[in-house]
This record gives sequence, structure tokens and C-alpha cells, in this order.
Amino acid sequence: MGRTADYSEQVCTVAATLEVVGDAWTLLILRDAFLGVRRFEQWQERLGVARNVLAARLKSLVGHGVLTKRAYSDRPPRYEYVLTAKGLDLHTVLLTMAAWGDRHIYGAAGHGPGGFIHEPCGQRFTAGLICDGCGAKLDIADLTPAPCCDAPTVREALAEAIGK
Amino acid sequence: MGRTADYSEQVCTVAATLEVVGDAWTLLILRDAFLGVRRFEQWQERLGVARNVLAARLKSLVGHGVLTKRAYSDRPPRYEYVLTAKGLDLHTVLLTMAAWGDRHIYGAAGHGPGGFIHEPCGQRFTAGLICDGCGAKLDIADLTPAPCCDAPTVREALAEAIGK
Repeated sequence: MGRTADYSEQVCTVAATLEVVGDAWTLLILRDAFLGVRRFEQWQERLGVARNVLAARLKSLVGHGVLTKRAYSDRPPRYEYVLTAKGLDLHTVLLTMAAWGDRHIYGAAGHGPGGFIHEPCGQRFTAGLICDGCGAKLDIADLTPAPCCDAPTVREALAEAIGK
Repeated sequence: MGRTADYSEQVCTVAATLEVVGDAWTLLILRDAFLGVRRFEQWQERLGVARNVLAARLKSLVGHGVLTKRAYSDRPPRYEYVLTAKGLDLHTVLLTMAAWGDRHIYGAAGHGPGGFIHEPCGQRFTAGLICDGCGAKLDIADLTPAPCCDAPTVREALAEAIGK
């Protein structure tokens, strides 16, 4: 990924996720994938990103099983990139980033550009967090560190996740 | 931030957030801040990050109002970095990243290392998303793009957010 950093020996789920999406271009590529972009030229035009950078990011996302590459034309051979179930599940990260940007950067205007309508209630969607276990709205004062465990490193866990 | 990219002319809340935290070291610095780290030497030791990189990231986070710098010793002068309310609100991004890493990278082991217990229910915390407007659990099939608006660029919105 062209980073100066290596934290693959850490034992941490956040670091593990960052090995896959811890890069601004990668997250913008995924943002556009959620908006329907599937083809190299579309990303290149929308993002203005260097072609070699875009190619490397797409290859990495395919390697991590976040995007899948499939042919949409045989002659000439042409490919598109589609979010997998694993990739679609990254909506949580992008939607919380959008909500934070709404509140703290675009906040003066009430909310930022674009975004989504939540159809069942008709309101502009802003992500809120709950505890998936009990369904209660999250108050971070209610979280205490869990006792840790004998867990693999990021490198080991990623190897297993990709190998499956 | 040493990036090759500039997307500050985009009109997008995700891009705006990425201007502040779209970098893996920055998110690891914030992860550690949530775990109680406040001092340069602690981050440096825990992350193994180059001192000039760490100094640049801390300066950027202070500039964006995510961390605040305060003296804890006058002689010799020593400073620590504390999450602001704006910084604390980034827990949503880190917790959704952790939940994704739990499910898709450390998933083979059930869940990853560390994490948190949700005290009211006693279960290991995993973040779930709701619509903040109506409180319903999110199904992404229920989101439709909102009509856009005459919104400022990321650069303009950031300037206003910092200037306040």
C-alpha cells in the first residue's frame, strides 16, 4: 500500500481493519462502489487518482475479498469490480465517517451534501450506534475494556481470513 | 499529511472526514487515545512510529480540534494530548472498524482480541447501526440517495470548522 508503516504484528481488530482500508483512496474507492461505480475508468475520472495507485488499491481490495473482479465483456476482455458481502459490510465504517463529517465539519450548514434518506421514516439518515447484543443505544461511558486473550497477530488473522 | 492525493475540492462528508482521519497512523493514535494514552513517548513506544510522523499527526489532530494540547508540567515544560468532544465523537468510526475486523478478519476465532464489555448487558460489545432519526435498526436496502444541495467543498467546510 506504499505506507511507511507496518503494524501487522499488533494484536488488534482496529489495526487489522486498517490493513485493509486504512488509506484515504481506498475508502473513497469504496464510497464510490457503494454509489454504483464498478469500472476502472469511472473511478479514475471521479477521483482524479493516478492510474497506478487506483490499480494497486483495486488489486488489494480484491486480494482481501472486499471487491470481486468479473468479466463484463469477452471481446474485448473487460472487467468490473463489485462489492462482496464482506465489502458491503463496510457500509458501517463509511456511514459513521459521514455522520461525523456532518456533525463536525459540515455542521455549520446543519448537514453535509448528499447522503441518504431513510425510507421507512423519511428522514435524512444519520448513523447512530447501539450495542448489537442488547439493542441499547450506546453511551461510551458504559464500555469497559474486555479481558484480553491469546489472540493471533493482525498478520496471522489476515492470512487466515484471505485463505478461507 | 504526506499524501500524494488531494480531494479537498470534492463536495462530500466522507472525504471531509478523511481529510482529518484518513490515515492509518492517525486512527491508531486515536485508538490509543481512547485507551488512555496522552503522551508523545507513550504513543511512540506503543506504535513504533517514527517521531517526525507522530509529531506531524498530533499537530494535525490538534489543528483540527480533535485533540487538545495542555501542559502537565511547567518545569520542565511538558505537554499531553487529550481528546476533545469532537475527538471523543470519533468512537463511532473506531468501533465500527473494530466490529468489521471482528467479523471478517478475526472472525474465525469468533471475535478479535481486546474490545469492550457493554456493562448494562454484560456482553462483549459489538457496534450495530440504527437510524438516529427513528431509532430503527439499519437495513442498507432502506437507504436511497438524498437530493443534493448547494454545498461547500471539503476545503471550505474544513476552514469553517477549524475557524470556529
